[in-house]
Amino acid sequence: MMYDRQVSFDKPTRVDGSSYIAEGIDKNEPRNTCLLYTLKDQSSGSLAKSLKIFTQHNINLLHIESRSSVRVPGYEFFVECDTTSGALGKAIDELREECSYFNIISRDYKDNSAAVPWFPRRIRDLDRFANQILSYGSELDSDHPGFTDPVYRARRKYFADIAYNYKHGEPLPRVEYTKEETETWGIIFRNLTKLYKTHACREYNHVFPLLVDNCGFREDNIPQLEDVSNFLKDCTGFTLRPVAGLLSSRDFLAGLAFRVFHSTQYIRHPSKPMYTPEPDVCHELMGHVPLFADPAFAQFSQEIGLASLGAPDDYIEKLATIFWFTVEYGMCRQDGELKAYGAGLLSSYGELEYCLSDKPQLKDFDPEVTGVTKYPITQFQEVYYVSESFESAKEKTIKFANSIPRPFGVRYNPYTQSIEVLDSKKQIRNLMDDINSEFQILQNAVQKLKV
Amino acid sequence: MMYDRQVSFDKPTRVDGSSYIAEGIDKNEPRNTCLLYTLKDQSSGSLAKSLKIFTQHNINLLHIESRSSVRVPGYEFFVECDTTSGALGKAIDELREECSYFNIISRDYKDNSAAVPWFPRRIRDLDRFANQILSYGSELDSDHPGFTDPVYRARRKYFADIAYNYKHGEPLPRVEYTKEETETWGIIFRNLTKLYKTHACREYNHVFPLLVDNCGFREDNIPQLEDVSNFLKDCTGFTLRPVAGLLSSRDFLAGLAFRVFHSTQYIRHPSKPMYTPEPDVCHELMGHVPLFADPAFAQFSQEIGLASLGAPDDYIEKLATIFWFTVEYGMCRQDGELKAYGAGLLSSYGELEYCLSDKPQLKDFDPEVTGVTKYPITQFQEVYYVSESFESAKEKTIKFANSIPRPFGVRYNPYTQSIEVLDSKKQIRNLMDDINSEFQILQNAVQKLKV
Amino acid sequence: MMYDRQVSFDKPTRVDGSSYIAEGIDKNEPRNTCLLYTLKDQSSGSLAKSLKIFTQHNINLLHIESRSSVRVPGYEFFVECDTTSGALGKAIDELREECSYFNIISRDYKDNSAAVPWFPRRIRDLDRFANQILSYGSELDSDHPGFTDPVYRARRKYFADIAYNYKHGEPLPRVEYTKEETETWGIIFRNLTKLYKTHACREYNHVFPLLVDNCGFREDNIPQLEDVSNFLKDCTGFTLRPVAGLLSSRDFLAGLAFRVFHSTQYIRHPSKPMYTPEPDVCHELMGHVPLFADPAFAQFSQEIGLASLGAPDDYIEKLATIFWFTVEYGMCRQDGELKAYGAGLLSSYGELEYCLSDKPQLKDFDPEVTGVTKYPITQFQEVYYVSESFESAKEKTIKFANSIPRPFGVRYNPYTQSIEVLDSKKQIRNLMDDINSEFQILQNAVQKLKV
Amino acid sequence: MMYDRQVSFDKPTRVDGSSYIAEGIDKNEPRNTCLLYTLKDQSSGSLAKSLKIFTQHNINLLHIESRSSVRVPGYEFFVECDTTSGALGKAIDELREECSYFNIISRDYKDNSAAVPWFPRRIRDLDRFANQILSYGSELDSDHPGFTDPVYRARRKYFADIAYNYKHGEPLPRVEYTKEETETWGIIFRNLTKLYKTHACREYNHVFPLLVDNCGFREDNIPQLEDVSNFLKDCTGFTLRPVAGLLSSRDFLAGLAFRVFHSTQYIRHPSKPMYTPEPDVCHELMGHVPLFADPAFAQFSQEIGLASLGAPDDYIEKLATIFWFTVEYGMCRQDGELKAYGAGLLSSYGELEYCLSDKPQLKDFDPEVTGVTKYPITQFQEVYYVSESFESAKEKTIKFANSIPRPFGVRYNPYTQSIEVLDSKKQIRNLMDDINSEFQILQNAVQKLKV
Repeated sequence: MMYDRQVSFDKPTRVDGSSYIAEGIDKNEPRNTCLLYTLKDQSSGSLAKSLKIFTQHNINLLHIESRSSVRVPGYEFFVECDTTSGALGKAIDELREECSYFNIISRDYKDNSAAVPWFPRRIRDLDRFANQILSYGSELDSDHPGFTDPVYRARRKYFADIAYNYKHGEPLPRVEYTKEETETWGIIFRNLTKLYKTHACREYNHVFPLLVDNCGFREDNIPQLEDVSNFLKDCTGFTLRPVAGLLSSRDFLAGLAFRVFHSTQYIRHPSKPMYTPEPDVCHELMGHVPLFADPAFAQFSQEIGLASLGAPDDYIEKLATIFWFTVEYGMCRQDGELKAYGAGLLSSYGELEYCLSDKPQLKDFDPEVTGVTKYPITQFQEVYYVSESFESAKEKTIKFANSIPRPFGVRYNPYTQSIEVLDSKKQIRNLMDDINSEFQILQNAVQKLKV
Repeated sequence: MMYDRQVSFDKPTRVDGSSYIAEGIDKNEPRNTCLLYTLKDQSSGSLAKSLKIFTQHNINLLHIESRSSVRVPGYEFFVECDTTSGALGKAIDELREECSYFNIISRDYKDNSAAVPWFPRRIRDLDRFANQILSYGSELDSDHPGFTDPVYRARRKYFADIAYNYKHGEPLPRVEYTKEETETWGIIFRNLTKLYKTHACREYNHVFPLLVDNCGFREDNIPQLEDVSNFLKDCTGFTLRPVAGLLSSRDFLAGLAFRVFHSTQYIRHPSKPMYTPEPDVCHELMGHVPLFADPAFAQFSQEIGLASLGAPDDYIEKLATIFWFTVEYGMCRQDGELKAYGAGLLSSYGELEYCLSDKPQLKDFDPEVTGVTKYPITQFQEVYYVSESFESAKEKTIKFANSIPRPFGVRYNPYTQSIEVLDSKKQIRNLMDDINSEFQILQNAVQKLKV
Repeated sequence: MMYDRQVSFDKPTRVDGSSYIAEGIDKNEPRNTCLLYTLKDQSSGSLAKSLKIFTQHNINLLHIESRSSVRVPGYEFFVECDTTSGALGKAIDELREECSYFNIISRDYKDNSAAVPWFPRRIRDLDRFANQILSYGSELDSDHPGFTDPVYRARRKYFADIAYNYKHGEPLPRVEYTKEETETWGIIFRNLTKLYKTHACREYNHVFPLLVDNCGFREDNIPQLEDVSNFLKDCTGFTLRPVAGLLSSRDFLAGLAFRVFHSTQYIRHPSKPMYTPEPDVCHELMGHVPLFADPAFAQFSQEIGLASLGAPDDYIEKLATIFWFTVEYGMCRQDGELKAYGAGLLSSYGELEYCLSDKPQLKDFDPEVTGVTKYPITQFQEVYYVSESFESAKEKTIKFANSIPRPFGVRYNPYTQSIEVLDSKKQIRNLMDDINSEFQILQNAVQKLKV
Repeated sequence: MMYDRQVSFDKPTRVDGSSYIAEGIDKNEPRNTCLLYTLKDQSSGSLAKSLKIFTQHNINLLHIESRSSVRVPGYEFFVECDTTSGALGKAIDELREECSYFNIISRDYKDNSAAVPWFPRRIRDLDRFANQILSYGSELDSDHPGFTDPVYRARRKYFADIAYNYKHGEPLPRVEYTKEETETWGIIFRNLTKLYKTHACREYNHVFPLLVDNCGFREDNIPQLEDVSNFLKDCTGFTLRPVAGLLSSRDFLAGLAFRVFHSTQYIRHPSKPMYTPEPDVCHELMGHVPLFADPAFAQFSQEIGLASLGAPDDYIEKLATIFWFTVEYGMCRQDGELKAYGAGLLSSYGELEYCLSDKPQLKDFDPEVTGVTKYPITQFQEVYYVSESFESAKEKTIKFANSIPRPFGVRYNPYTQSIEVLDSKKQIRNLMDDINSEFQILQNAVQKLKV
């Protein structure tokens, strides 16, 4: 059955540790600490002076960046420190004295109550995830259908390498799928498309024909991620990004904040076309893609992502669970009838039939409750959570997000494709100006409306 | 003196018509008509049925696209028609009967009261402008300093070809400037930087050091458009796009709606380093670029662009004039002192000194008045318009935009990098949902604010 | 136990029909029909012309009013027709032809699908309710503790007459309570105040000391409605209005839309101080009043009222039920503990203890579910609905209200103390202007905030 | 010509000082100081403890009030101190130490930089103005047409006494005007009504017929303030309040913040029906009243009032001047034609003709400029300020108001008829909740709109 990437991160038994380093991935990437600060002294030369503090404490700086501050009229500096040497704690204490704004962002937040867990600030920071992958693509569990198939394993390595070397902004590599792979896809495509009219939600059935027309969704063709990503970009701004293996929940969710979905590109083993122990291109394309073309669903997914940025670990787990019960296994009620919208359902013939039967339990989607529900990953779900609409699910998620203990608000700036950490009055005023502008657009549009 | 691209479009004397076709640019690109429509009958097969109407009237279709409608629950179709043959008028009359929504967008709007002047809907539509350039890059007026210099003319052709072949999404080609070109830049750089501290607005002086740090703004180096564009993208989402020659005002302003600035890449003739009869890379980099890194200015510029989309010709002229008196020659008052923010001032040593003298006349920026002011393009301005702030200039421009006779509102969607034509209740409801979401972000951010 | 006015309306067995007319209340008040219309012809004299239509059909007009239209630039007319004679249907058909806006509001909406159920438009229209009272104050059921007590019945008549003759805008008549009455109050006061600290919600305990200080809430004094009403007016704009007997649910809820609470002024029979089969002044003052001083609760209550205006009968019943399970019997969770905020709980020693025991069932407040729950009126509730906060209860109620089938939105204008029926673009634009103004106040206030 | 009450306050020559005290008005009303504070210690008994501080410093307290704080979860206290004895400064210093919120409001703000100029917080505080009147009604200048007419002077005293004794909430006393008075009114009415169609703004001509229908605006009848006030209340919530003489600008403008207009009730001297050196009932009813029935104008007027609350003296003068050039002498452009909307114009036959002639100078209304323009009060204006619309005038005024140096925002709460001083995050959150609610009403109304 479906096997979700962000969940399995916490299941070490699944990770073939010995082969890990053999694959060349450096699991022990140094977990650097980033400092974002604004100096009280805004005169030129003050950056250099502040950097001396690091030298004095023997700290190696990996990246230095100056930029315009959104909080005060002046500059702020972004410094990435190597944490393997030097006395960072002391340097921080000293530097903080000189600053009007100071923020620590680090993957090493667990031992540091002052630090916010690291998250990508700009879309190109997602390139960093490649080094954080836990289970690299060609490592297979011993019970994987392709475990003993050297051809399949080589193929998996090929796909993993594509993803590992991918950088933001590049076109997604086009892949020539083998005849056997296309046949596997065909079996799945043929079966699932029989059920959609009756089992899938309205939005799914609305988008599907457009994917047929525009992206080559056909029984005899595995669509190219590049075409699909471009289509999604036109619809909602979502894009796909190839992923070389399992990401942590934290990283995977962070991608959604940028409307980026980390997608596999390989296909399951041909020996069991109706089964896969992990996400594959069938799951992504038949399950996830159609919904990401829906504006309300796209926003909902992004909200989960935004909620995760800098959140404490226990909230990451809740959000991953919410993701599981919505984006993966969500159901909704439309015109009085139950329908599936979760990708795990829409890409599984068996569970799609099952979920509309009278066997599973149904509950109203409520982030507080849904977020702490236990779930199996190797069999059909016992409970499904039902939403009224994506709008309503989004609103509930935002409310839940507001309860997450973070000392700041977050906002995505789609112009700069970056995250704004809202913790100053100036930013709030800018946000109010933006709302004002939107409101003027609204007033003008209503004015133009023919009634 | 400075010579502005969108204005000179209407000055046919400047266009060396004979050399135009010689340069291989098809001035007579067919001015196709685009139809955007939603059929009353939303059953599958209805698109095909509607296309038959075109066949029956012998109309050649150049592009057909189906997409999700933002106005009704269903699909809409976008069809581009070749207007050189067939009975388009009749086809339109017939098709309109079958439609619940129907919109004609055409470069041939002048003879067609039902048509909205064509404008780009998606950022990649800007690629269309290349065929609409009036005065191609290497055509020089007889009084141009480089008119008789074959080396300079070849160089200009080189730059024009780069731009002509550029497509959206590609990296901007990096250029190796000659020693002589860099020296020309150096003279200008050295002189202007003497004046900025006292003559340029606060925002300019705030951004300039960041350009030095990040984009190689130095006396001995002409910065690469690619680096500058990436920097701007990070700051405000503005990007540069190389342009092969003069664009019409309508096209040039439309680019701003997408936060795209059409930029020259060549440099003026070395014989007169302090003079250029047309924009060049010095004007763009020293004049325009720093301000586009300022969020409020970026928004202001975009508002001018959005106001222009589908506007009648007389309003295009007003908006081009507003652009002239703000983005090119604007001044502002800061802490009681006059400062320059217009690119035409900030890239001209002479006029930058002059504008702060007591010679020119100063008036408050008021789009209604500013938009109908006549101005010289070959000498210093006699009047400058002064703004309080970019925020205030933006608000005034939005108010002015709302007075433009258009049967719809417009809104830029930065996720899909496309223009939304607002003319239905469903879109208005979506806009209200978006405002609501922004407002919730605001509420959360205020909640988090330490008071 | 507590016995709620709007509910018992539908329980004819409780109404002593025979004594009804004897009390001099005209149950058969003619159920007039009101017409609100705007003529296409806005020239002077057009009103007179339109009134001729009524004359021609022999319809008696009881009230004619011209006023400025909020929908179009012109006037609208409000005409109240006697429905006992003439051919109103024909007149309406004829008149409607001449109108650009036409609306029928009538107590006789049941036989007329085009009519909106009558509701008060201005606060002084509440004076109309006096003639719609079902069970006049001195009519007592045979099982009423005071049924055989002529002194008590005379006293009840005295209070009913005060209320019956009360007109909006007058000060509420002050009453001298007898020693026996004050003693009854004292017993209740003494007992209940023992429980509040532990059993009542935070808002109740916050307001109570202010009522002691400002309104004479003491064991030895029954507070005067006038003092209490003035206090509430200062806190939230709520006011009390004496009521002579039972109002229909529709009328009672309509009062809340104006932040008017219809309050009894008499006290229960002294023979059973801890019991009353109907609301009395103890219930109002100890139960309802403190919460109406809380801004969020006041808004919540008003939302129920606004939702009821012009709603179909089945929705009136749902709203009355929602009122029952919130304002009368609502509970909430505060700092992890259950607390009571409903007046029926806060004025009953027995049920206040019971509701916090482990006996009753607790459910989350959800208007859709709560609104269709059956409930007993003569014994303790079996189920209580729990809210997170009044803010959240208000939001849920607004969402529910938006699902009520009405062809218009409603909004209360506190300046004119009148209801605005929103069904035109012009009103929507005015509303947007108001929101804009509020938003500017917000921007200014944030600007002034010391951070 | 017209002579404006709020302006002449600063013209001591107009005040007949000697007769002042003779009229029984206590010019030297003690200028008490009010303290609004929240104690850090919120336990019961803390108020009493804080009051001891006053006793210790021998300060007499005139009024003590406890209320719910809108800033923190707790209570705040409002204490009015007699400043004639005791050591208030020391008491304040001591008390401030104990407080989490502390605000001084005083008519004696000039010597106290920490104090905010006194302003009414609740509508009934306007009763305080009666003691602050400078020139009592029956005091006439020696050049007043009625100076030597004892009957007229007695009549003026009669009207002044009505106003002096008036208390908020009472009905406005009805007055029987003499035959001679009615004739004076008739002359003015007859003449002015000839000009309105061509000279008055659209809004004026829209409302006037309603005043004829509803308030007895007729040549042979002086309308009663009570009827007019009730009509205005229904239209916009404005009410009239009789005034016994000249108010200071600060007090007069403060009334507008509550949508209260201080109106004279007497009529000019019959000897010169077309002239009055001061406002009279003709000026109020023919000049001011019709516009106050217009919602946009009502809001605009209120904004001037709100801007004045707690403003420094120089801004009060600017606001009074803005009032003069708008509410009294404002002009506007409608459908390309100039029209008058100022009361001083609309109640003066001569100036109404003159203002539309080519003699006066016309300038665009701009609060910054308008607010510092000098003007004559005894002859026709030399310059008039022209507004585009009341909406636009309102927006400009709000912008101007935001520039007034006050450490807080202000907002009128029409439910409680009180001013909210916005200076805490909690209030800002409440305001955001209110905007949210309004926005939901908007969303619902748009949803219901038939398109």
